[in-house]
Amino acid sequence: MSGLRIEKLVVIGVGLIGGSFALALQKARVVKHVVGVGRTRKNLNVALKLGVIDEISHDAAQAVRDADLVLIGTPVGQMPAVMKAIAPHLGAKTIVTDGGSTKQDVIACARKYLGAHFTRFVPAHPMAGTEHSGAAAAFAELYRGRKVILVPQRETEAKALALVRAAWLACGANVVRLKPREHDEILAHVSHLPHVVAFALMHTLARRKDAKRVLGFSAGGLRDTVRIAGSSPEMWRDIFLANRLELLAAIDKYINEIKYLRKSLAARDGAAMQALFEGARDARERWLVGAKRPVQRPAQRPTQRR
Amino acid sequence: MSGLRIEKLVVIGVGLIGGSFALALQKARVVKHVVGVGRTRKNLNVALKLGVIDEISHDAAQAVRDADLVLIGTPVGQMPAVMKAIAPHLGAKTIVTDGGSTKQDVIACARKYLGAHFTRFVPAHPMAGTEHSGAAAAFAELYRGRKVILVPQRETEAKALALVRAAWLACGANVVRLKPREHDEILAHVSHLPHVVAFALMHTLARRKDAKRVLGFSAGGLRDTVRIAGSSPEMWRDIFLANRLELLAAIDKYINEIKYLRKSLAARDGAAMQALFEGARDARERWLVGAKRPVQRPAQRPTQRR
Repeated sequence: MSGLRIEKLVVIGVGLIGGSFALALQKARVVKHVVGVGRTRKNLNVALKLGVIDEISHDAAQAVRDADLVLIGTPVGQMPAVMKAIAPHLGAKTIVTDGGSTKQDVIACARKYLGAHFTRFVPAHPMAGTEHSGAAAAFAELYRGRKVILVPQRETEAKALALVRAAWLACGANVVRLKPREHDEILAHVSHLPHVVAFALMHTLARRKDAKRVLGFSAGGLRDTVRIAGSSPEMWRDIFLANRLELLAAIDKYINEIKYLRKSLAARDGAAMQALFEGARDARERWLVGAKRPVQRPAQRPTQRR
Repeated sequence: MSGLRIEKLVVIGVGLIGGSFALALQKARVVKHVVGVGRTRKNLNVALKLGVIDEISHDAAQAVRDADLVLIGTPVGQMPAVMKAIAPHLGAKTIVTDGGSTKQDVIACARKYLGAHFTRFVPAHPMAGTEHSGAAAAFAELYRGRKVILVPQRETEAKALALVRAAWLACGANVVRLKPREHDEILAHVSHLPHVVAFALMHTLARRKDAKRVLGFSAGGLRDTVRIAGSSPEMWRDIFLANRLELLAAIDKYINEIKYLRKSLAARDGAAMQALFEGARDARERWLVGAKRPVQRPAQRPTQRR
């Protein structure tokens, strides 16, 4: 961390993840110049206006030429196209990292498209996010106290790994390492499956013709349970497709739990239901003992979506 | 509301619902004396110490004799026993109401056990709650701005209905009316189904041998999605059993959504998944436009459970 100095950072995909990375590094005073690359001019203008980036570039190939660090902050579905486009133009010392929600597929993609530069690619995944997206949702404290998972491969250069690690530490994150498969299997359960659950629950209610009236009778419980159903449909489509096999296995386990609960209810087996509820409640309490609340996004920052 | 004056209120089951009702009426200065009845001496002592009630009674029959209003705040599974015990001792002008989460079964139970007093029974259900339970979790503002559903029957005396309505208005609630079946069908979807979903998701994760480590990789999404899995297992067992048929129908609809999503993922049908996510997200946004955040429980009040 000491001595970290990034002259030029290029963020491809200036959303919540990429934008917050840029803001955190600026706040830590370890980056001099931030260039934003993206598909949507409007979002880049917002990023520039809010000081998330210093410069807009419409030419990723040009932008990465003399960069010290490139963060690919796009949804995983766009990474093949991004890597293909930048690979021939990466500088000899440019280090590349990503914030993708899956790792086996991103690593396979990098192996395929980055060629000799694969040794300077450091796969990463910060365990942070909100249901908001876009540059306007970014804030410097997003990563403070949160886990960032690094997934280096045997080819990864030590110097590249050290720089990416130092950058995340400068963001206030706790850096840990996992293997690609292990990462994807765990994330399928603690992140992707909850999104399946929340989207499906919200959609069950949305299908009703009287949805608006019926939702008016809900209390805070439903609201929290479906909060992440406000997340980006495009991003989650890509994550699900990218982590398809691990997520299918997690969904099957979950369907079994729901069916067991349904069967117990149909049979009026109160004891079976209560045992399941107690197991769930106790596991939740053990988990939350000592777990800290994530840093909340400051209220004064303008939002792209409520 | 003007002129409402309750000399003696008896709360049977001094938990979050009954305790908050007592505190709100005290704050509105419309109740003179509150008697608490319950199964657990420890909880009643907490209620007395915190000023939720003025007196502990271990004899429900004795307590209700000269009460103006009796609120049955127990889980619905205990209501048959409670009603059976108090019915012969109810004063000639005593009005009875409840806070039960289901209404068809509570009304059937009241018809069976309250006899001639059924005309002075006003079935009610406040749409408020937290994952905390017990007298220590009660607070006077719980009902402020929240819906309270009254489910009067054709036999219900106008005077009884007026008093219960006035009491809830004094708590700051918005009073609405539904039919019993309508109430149970709606609640199965917006309250009971989210609990099925949260308990089942948390249990899926809890079953893993490495649950603690894996949960350490979660972000805020999982935490919110399973918040209500911290709710009382006994209470929710009873609610599920009491609303069995409506809830089974809601679970079946939800299982269909999950299976459709699973099938789309297995078939790599990104468009189908995205359409479902967009439908869910848009419905959530339409719902939340104009919906207010519920009043939060004050932080300084001691809690029974974290």
